[in-house]
Amino acid sequence: MSKKIEVCLTPALIDLYDIEKSIVVVIDILRATSSITYGIENGATAIIPVANVEDCLNYSNKGYLLAAERNGEVVAGYDFGNSPFSYTQEKVGGKTVVLTTTNGTKALHLAHKRAAQVVIGSFLNLDSLCEYLESQTHNVLLLCAGWKDQFNLEDTLFAGAVVNKLRKGFEHFDDSSVAAEDLYLLAKDNLRGYLHKSSHSHRLAQLNIEEDVVFCLQLNICKAIPVLEGESLVALKR
Amino acid sequence: MSKKIEVCLTPALIDLYDIEKSIVVVIDILRATSSITYGIENGATAIIPVANVEDCLNYSNKGYLLAAERNGEVVAGYDFGNSPFSYTQEKVGGKTVVLTTTNGTKALHLAHKRAAQVVIGSFLNLDSLCEYLESQTHNVLLLCAGWKDQFNLEDTLFAGAVVNKLRKGFEHFDDSSVAAEDLYLLAKDNLRGYLHKSSHSHRLAQLNIEEDVVFCLQLNICKAIPVLEGESLVALKR
Repeated sequence: MSKKIEVCLTPALIDLYDIEKSIVVVIDILRATSSITYGIENGATAIIPVANVEDCLNYSNKGYLLAAERNGEVVAGYDFGNSPFSYTQEKVGGKTVVLTTTNGTKALHLAHKRAAQVVIGSFLNLDSLCEYLESQTHNVLLLCAGWKDQFNLEDTLFAGAVVNKLRKGFEHFDDSSVAAEDLYLLAKDNLRGYLHKSSHSHRLAQLNIEEDVVFCLQLNICKAIPVLEGESLVALKR
Repeated sequence: MSKKIEVCLTPALIDLYDIEKSIVVVIDILRATSSITYGIENGATAIIPVANVEDCLNYSNKGYLLAAERNGEVVAGYDFGNSPFSYTQEKVGGKTVVLTTTNGTKALHLAHKRAAQVVIGSFLNLDSLCEYLESQTHNVLLLCAGWKDQFNLEDTLFAGAVVNKLRKGFEHFDDSSVAAEDLYLLAKDNLRGYLHKSSHSHRLAQLNIEEDVVFCLQLNICKAIPVLEGESLVALKR
């Protein structure tokens, strides 16, 4: 059985891929898919990603937790923002969270309904995710959420980490998976240091989310794999 | 004066860039922009890139040389194909060549009329190109032609080589330029060996153009910089 792994470097390139036969892994390391992984790990019943603060309002009065952030600050009246530190067991255990994201939601919606399955990847659940992908017969498309359709380093590095882990079980790799893996191998001993090269580095510093960044670059603190069911992300049952 | 350098990894992403203020360098290493560089170096009056063999026919009976290739073979009735070995002084000196390309032409047409200037880059004219870009006040956009809108390694490596050369004269780099430079630094001591990792490697072997590939990876055997004027690529006058 010959399996293929490909890396879609930004959502703007998704139409080049035959995703119907693939498990699509959505990657938005800073911070959507890291926070989602951590929230599902910590017992959130479901996490519903929406594109903007206004969409979030459609879910008010349903007993859901609403997470919305603008310019790094929690929006007045909302329960919390996008920091993974908000997705602890005390805060989200047994709850449904509605989360506003921009890049992550766009990537999710593009893959939704077309892909064989849509799951969530982050450094936090790297090994668990890779074991699952290895156990399936489907091809894998690693979909980097990027930044406003542009290539970004952090999502590419994670895609490269997955390629590196899965190399033995897959036979076909595209050029972007080769590049992502080599960048990961270059960066892996100091992911945070490597990301200082990124154009986002200044943006991140301004958002004052350094603690979040360090958190999101931790390896394998979670076992959960969030999977898209309808409009909600829930824990994959294995 | 603060100058910006960016790498557009495939033509499908061109709309994300503000190319009006940039010199756009079109990159299609295997083989269009290498053959164009070599042809202009060898005294071709002009090279007119067209999208397909049929477009090429519009230029017959004008005394132009017609270059057309399908599946690695020169099309019957045409003067030669896309191999850089066809672009020698004896063959193209003083002549106008009409060249069919797919990826390269698409990239050229996207940049045409919008960019401040469109020039052609290849390993063959790397240093000469970089000296020129350094001497200008414009931002630089390195536009990889890719393969059918997909990311490819060879064009990205060349973009990385340019970023590496220009680092001192520019202040702003996007994430894709950081990635391209690091991949180039990884590959530079054995570009041909590195490209064996590429998914194109099998395709290239099938086309039986190994000699062309080796030729296209030579550094600085040309001084010429082809520049787009109207529909034609001609030698940049300095």
